[in-house]
Amino acid sequence: MKLNSNYSNLKKNYLFIDIAHRLREYTSLHPDADIIKMGIGDVTLPLAPAVVEAMKRAADEMGKKETFRGYVDDNGYDFLINAIKNYYSGFGVDLDYWEIFVSDGAKSDLGNILDLFDSDNTVLVTDPVYPVYVDTNVMAGRRIIYADANESNGFLPMPDRSVRADLIYLCTPNNPTGAAYTRAQLREWIDYAKENNALILLDAAYEAFITDPDVPHSAYEIEGARECVIEFCSLSKTAGFTGTRCGYTIVPKTLKADGDLNAMWLRRQTTKFNGVAYVVQRAAEAVFTPEGQKQIRENIAYYQQNAAILMSGLDRCNIKYFGGKNSPYIWLKCPGGMGSWEFFDRLLNEANVVGTPGEGFGKNGAGYFRLTSFSTHEKTTEAMERLYRMLKG
Amino acid sequence: MKLNSNYSNLKKNYLFIDIAHRLREYTSLHPDADIIKMGIGDVTLPLAPAVVEAMKRAADEMGKKETFRGYVDDNGYDFLINAIKNYYSGFGVDLDYWEIFVSDGAKSDLGNILDLFDSDNTVLVTDPVYPVYVDTNVMAGRRIIYADANESNGFLPMPDRSVRADLIYLCTPNNPTGAAYTRAQLREWIDYAKENNALILLDAAYEAFITDPDVPHSAYEIEGARECVIEFCSLSKTAGFTGTRCGYTIVPKTLKADGDLNAMWLRRQTTKFNGVAYVVQRAAEAVFTPEGQKQIRENIAYYQQNAAILMSGLDRCNIKYFGGKNSPYIWLKCPGGMGSWEFFDRLLNEANVVGTPGEGFGKNGAGYFRLTSFSTHEKTTEAMERLYRMLKG
Repeated sequence: MKLNSNYSNLKKNYLFIDIAHRLREYTSLHPDADIIKMGIGDVTLPLAPAVVEAMKRAADEMGKKETFRGYVDDNGYDFLINAIKNYYSGFGVDLDYWEIFVSDGAKSDLGNILDLFDSDNTVLVTDPVYPVYVDTNVMAGRRIIYADANESNGFLPMPDRSVRADLIYLCTPNNPTGAAYTRAQLREWIDYAKENNALILLDAAYEAFITDPDVPHSAYEIEGARECVIEFCSLSKTAGFTGTRCGYTIVPKTLKADGDLNAMWLRRQTTKFNGVAYVVQRAAEAVFTPEGQKQIRENIAYYQQNAAILMSGLDRCNIKYFGGKNSPYIWLKCPGGMGSWEFFDRLLNEANVVGTPGEGFGKNGAGYFRLTSFSTHEKTTEAMERLYRMLKG
Repeated sequence: MKLNSNYSNLKKNYLFIDIAHRLREYTSLHPDADIIKMGIGDVTLPLAPAVVEAMKRAADEMGKKETFRGYVDDNGYDFLINAIKNYYSGFGVDLDYWEIFVSDGAKSDLGNILDLFDSDNTVLVTDPVYPVYVDTNVMAGRRIIYADANESNGFLPMPDRSVRADLIYLCTPNNPTGAAYTRAQLREWIDYAKENNALILLDAAYEAFITDPDVPHSAYEIEGARECVIEFCSLSKTAGFTGTRCGYTIVPKTLKADGDLNAMWLRRQTTKFNGVAYVVQRAAEAVFTPEGQKQIRENIAYYQQNAAILMSGLDRCNIKYFGGKNSPYIWLKCPGGMGSWEFFDRLLNEANVVGTPGEGFGKNGAGYFRLTSFSTHEKTTEAMERLYRMLKG
């Protein structure tokens, strides 16, 4: 048989392997070091009580003949789809029931959606970039072009009319930079996509961290988005579902394309996917109840307080940064013109703090560094104190 | 953007839509009819108590900071991978830890595995066929050839040396026919695959229903399989997980190919999948405990008793059938030379029993009919009694 030769074009992503290696080396030499980890973008607070209770109730239902559930419905259970529909109403967005697809997370669908497109398409991603957007397209042999995100545009590149793209990935609020498009900026991208008969794949995984009223929670708040945006969201960061796996993908029926993308996606999913577990869909439903919303908002507020601690710590050190305001990520400019890895090594060796070197996300990440707000208040405060002492020397 | 034009070559699968339509029509005319449904291949018995308890314990863990789990490990949690490894040991099969990938069901992985192969491959499927094997390859534009399964070969086609195939789908015990390859028969397919540098994608979703000692539970019981077989299994039918979603895929490190398929699959999964929920993996682990095995075996035995009721009922009617012995499916030859849909209509109208017309699974299904053993003893017995009375006229 012939293999998919595009796989040989994948770059091995050494970033987190390198980090783990350097960390292991350091701790083997300094076994008693009190390391503070602010590198990996995984949540730490437990599932909300309302979510746990819903999951346990659902497990009990699955154990009784009268309430047992077999194969999951096509695009998700109605109780969850209606909860998501209602959540979008809160942003003033009216979705059709059949435009909402329950997923096992944004990452799966961001990759799987590509099944619907020819390999002969030009894909636009920003640099720095969440590597999954690149790798999934390399696997299919698509041309990839980059839009530079840098200090001069606040890590929010705007469309370049001289460039032609077919599929455009936007992650807003952004991983890794934490920068978020305003309504006016996103409208420019939507206009560009419409002019180019292009499609925007919008990763809204960090939507729940938005605090700025000018930053939209959904692209569909903006006119024209229903013609050219597929939106992916996840409960991973919203409700601590990184290990519970549930999200949702919005495929409007009004997308402009040479075929019915909504119908194609339903066909793709019913052919290659069997839905999300009943217990998980019940857990997700609980996120959208008033009680669930109150509980998850407390967790998000906790992380946001960490972001505030990071921001004031960096201000104190006179370090420039992006993100934090609408995002759990802080993207800082390495002080003193240090390179990403140079700063990583100093921070590890001198302050025992671990973060993520920006250049792991692309060339424009060189000289930048990502910190996450998923630690505790105490450790976050301590990390900033150590950074201050390190730089003060 | 350019769409994947292969989607326009997909045939709409009207089978279950047609069935639902005819059923709806009948019940609207006969609202009080006592319909017995033996059509859809979904389980009906609840999750085993050990599974429910494990899921609830895991939900509690997810609700406490100390035991909360974030992102799932690469190919699954070690507790589940080791349980699966141990289960295979029971068949005399020794798998490497990194050859086992926890999935959200066989269907997903049977489709997604195709990412690893070029579209320029010839795919061999049997006819009748589980439609997913065909549709997933049509979506990628691969050539599909058919091996005829029919009465003369007991619905177990053997390899034809004059035919060249690259990817071979075998479902054993089979959906829809219930027929299962013996060790000797499967060895012939393995020999054929090796001669052709082909790969067998073996769907073992019904493995737990095997009673015949000559029928292998895993292809890896047979010499040479580790060079040419990827095996897909699921807890859907084994443990009633159709609505809970967990399975496993075995990708040997010793497969003969022009690249490392095991490494490619790990790369595919870590890029396009985020693993199975912790609570679901704990539930799956419970299936493999002595207590869990005892409980799920009781459920399987219940379905097997239904299969026995179906088989003796068909014997009484002098109807020829396949399957049932190693499978929850009975594949019967429609009596009196009736066509599949003709028999469907008579059975619905005269006996108020719903099954699945064989021709929905391919041309060789014409004149055949599938019944499932997932109903209750009482309804299964009653269905056979009604069939007898109908035919006796």
